[in-house]
Amino acid sequence: MKISEKIKYIAFDADDTLWPNELYYHRTKEAYLKLMSFTLSGEEVEREILKTELANMKLFGFGTKGFTLSLIETALRIGGTGVSNDKIEGIIKLGKELLNSPVDLFDGVDEVLQKLGKKYKLIVATKGDLHDQERKLAASGVEPYFHHIEIMSNKKEQNYRKLLDHLEISPEEFLMVGNSVKSDILPVLNLGGFAVHIPYHLTWEYERHNDEDIKNPRFFELEKIRELLKLV
Amino acid sequence: MKISEKIKYIAFDADDTLWPNELYYHRTKEAYLKLMSFTLSGEEVEREILKTELANMKLFGFGTKGFTLSLIETALRIGGTGVSNDKIEGIIKLGKELLNSPVDLFDGVDEVLQKLGKKYKLIVATKGDLHDQERKLAASGVEPYFHHIEIMSNKKEQNYRKLLDHLEISPEEFLMVGNSVKSDILPVLNLGGFAVHIPYHLTWEYERHNDEDIKNPRFFELEKIRELLKLV
Repeated sequence: MKISEKIKYIAFDADDTLWPNELYYHRTKEAYLKLMSFTLSGEEVEREILKTELANMKLFGFGTKGFTLSLIETALRIGGTGVSNDKIEGIIKLGKELLNSPVDLFDGVDEVLQKLGKKYKLIVATKGDLHDQERKLAASGVEPYFHHIEIMSNKKEQNYRKLLDHLEISPEEFLMVGNSVKSDILPVLNLGGFAVHIPYHLTWEYERHNDEDIKNPRFFELEKIRELLKLV
Repeated sequence: MKISEKIKYIAFDADDTLWPNELYYHRTKEAYLKLMSFTLSGEEVEREILKTELANMKLFGFGTKGFTLSLIETALRIGGTGVSNDKIEGIIKLGKELLNSPVDLFDGVDEVLQKLGKKYKLIVATKGDLHDQERKLAASGVEPYFHHIEIMSNKKEQNYRKLLDHLEISPEEFLMVGNSVKSDILPVLNLGGFAVHIPYHLTWEYERHNDEDIKNPRFFELEKIRELLKLV
């Protein structure tokens, strides 16, 4: 089955679509709980972290440096007087390790990009910290497959519209592939583009979305990125 | 006097070219010294901050969030056991104020962009944190004058080459205007483009450059941005 003959551009989200990312955030939070040994439960601490992140979102945007600052702020708020300088130093170290996390492509990514790159113009449309996303792309080894790389401060409808305008792409020529319904799928469908959802087993609370069925003829759900080769 | 009839694109650095930025960093460092009351002198602390920033540059890149983390790290390193949780909180607050700093155009900027925009395609070529730079551009009110906005992770020769390739501009059609000899002037001259230096009275130590005379027929130095109108 083929989606549409009109598609000329296929854009890929990067974190948790081409390589794991949330996994490393998850591990960082676990290490943080262990380091801090708060009196609150792990779940309660996670809620406090999210609360700090949401409060800082407008100022910090997305990315690991803002996350690290939010971890420090959360520790100071809920840790009482028990937060030693060593522990603050430990949090900064965790943030740095996260900024150094490995970039291991998911199974099939290289093959899929190589094959699709012969027929379509491939784009990376990723959100987050410019410096960190560039590091990951360079480390991934797949940068040469891409016609265009767009590192976005956010992935809302107007951000995608800007991208399409900039590259002079009309929505029916555009297919977006990603793991986040909220950031990769819905805004693109709303614009009239095609979208393929490939869920990742971990999702940041912020990206979670009530999984009502999406009824849209331009929407597709796959389990593995390799299945894309049959779809387009 | 006219620089060159070939110029079609004029790119502007943003921080300290269109609006003050280093001034707010300077004030933040002063507030940091006051908050921390280290035993070291102000100059010694500044050197320690720069040392931390340089050590973190590869991981953090440029921008206020990384700077804030470096301020915390510096405090922990040189402050001994005297760094209270309140002070760490105070540093985060300083970082947030810096992220909220006003965007006040330098005198003449609006007029210059408006007039040049009728004859040239204008570009912003700025370095730093994606989210923060977008905030400033939106707050500046001058975004509509620009044909293209490029937020770069760095401003070395290869970053400019990418920008020119991407927009299909040849170097002799390109003029860069900025306050940093290191980031705005030399890489563009090396590529064969034109460059106009408009110094700002404060320069971050990292951007400082031995001011040997630049002997290049494609290089110009101005005092005020308004003088651009006579030059091009």
